[in-house]
Amino acid sequence: MTRTKFHEGLEELKQKLLEMAGMAEQAVDRAIEAYRKRDAALCHRVLEDEPAINRAEREIDELALDLLAMQQPMAVDLRFILAVIKINADLERVGDQAVNIAERVMDMSGYPAAELPVDIPRMASTTAGMVKRALEAFIQGDADLAQAVLEMDDIVDRMNRDAFVALSKLMRKSPESSGPALDALLIARNLERVADHATNIAEDVIFWVRGADVRHGGSTETPPAQE
Amino acid sequence: MTRTKFHEGLEELKQKLLEMAGMAEQAVDRAIEAYRKRDAALCHRVLEDEPAINRAEREIDELALDLLAMQQPMAVDLRFILAVIKINADLERVGDQAVNIAERVMDMSGYPAAELPVDIPRMASTTAGMVKRALEAFIQGDADLAQAVLEMDDIVDRMNRDAFVALSKLMRKSPESSGPALDALLIARNLERVADHATNIAEDVIFWVRGADVRHGGSTETPPAQE
Repeated sequence: MTRTKFHEGLEELKQKLLEMAGMAEQAVDRAIEAYRKRDAALCHRVLEDEPAINRAEREIDELALDLLAMQQPMAVDLRFILAVIKINADLERVGDQAVNIAERVMDMSGYPAAELPVDIPRMASTTAGMVKRALEAFIQGDADLAQAVLEMDDIVDRMNRDAFVALSKLMRKSPESSGPALDALLIARNLERVADHATNIAEDVIFWVRGADVRHGGSTETPPAQE
Repeated sequence: MTRTKFHEGLEELKQKLLEMAGMAEQAVDRAIEAYRKRDAALCHRVLEDEPAINRAEREIDELALDLLAMQQPMAVDLRFILAVIKINADLERVGDQAVNIAERVMDMSGYPAAELPVDIPRMASTTAGMVKRALEAFIQGDADLAQAVLEMDDIVDRMNRDAFVALSKLMRKSPESSGPALDALLIARNLERVADHATNIAEDVIFWVRGADVRHGGSTETPPAQE
């Protein structure tokens, strides 16, 4: 296999990952639209689309494996392929979170409409922004943009904590609302996990671009591993 | 680098992963012991130990990367290294779940003791059994044992669903118990996620041993990758 073919393979890998990302983003968007409209049909749609995301994950892993097997990649290509493998796993889990949200929305539709002290669409929009930026950072190979995503994670964490406090208080005070309040609390947690996955993706982009591991607060100036 | 050195590196990678697994298992065990005893000091211990798990994850990834860079691995070694990278990520997330559980136990200790309709220690013991078996399957390279782990996942899912029904009902009926009931419900969900990670690990063992991808219901009869 020539180096040109290899680079075509890397490009294909990137394209497939972006398609996968589009599917995962769409699943979350749909689940949140289902929340806004209390639309059970849209929830089913999210559930039905999950196997396609899982299939895409598998195909990307196999392509990555083929590329690793075909030729001795250079360090930068190796880090890129590993970043793709990790981002791929995170995107599949974003799809899982969309399914979890859809299931909670289906549960909510069994209760009378309740006024809930949480702005799920706003939280979802912040979270979706993180995912979009993390992927933009991946497309551009832009470590600074990826760094900005890491800083957004605190905002979503705070939104989730506020939702927890407000909704668990409502459950205590108004037991008749405890069903939908619990569903909303769990949806907020699911969104917080989507934000965690966006953070992981951003970290993997930095790992690839800077050749350093920033995960878990490690410095980007960490010297490379012993040779 | 000689092939012998390479194989020594693979052995070291395996040993490091097992150490990491021991840390993640211990974190969950401690969080559950903290639940049984409502022991806040033990919760803090779980939180304090998390950075060590995160560091271990990083070291394993770097070693895996070094091994991939040093020599063109054969297909079976490549699959092994990729399985380690994926198992590594799952173990780190098991550690995260232990932290989540410890945080909920700390929250519970702020409420008077309540009788809760859920057997968390029993659920934890089933879950821990899955993790142990998945790792045993990894050590032995035993795809059949890994397959058995996949089948245990339904049991934990059912336990989690039962816990959800019983605890959300309690929240409606006895708002004064809704704080600890919510904590217990979230702990049950965290354990269910630990079981999901055990399932992922088992799938990665099968992927490595059989050279086939069983994730998301794919057939185990897929022919092995080209040698």
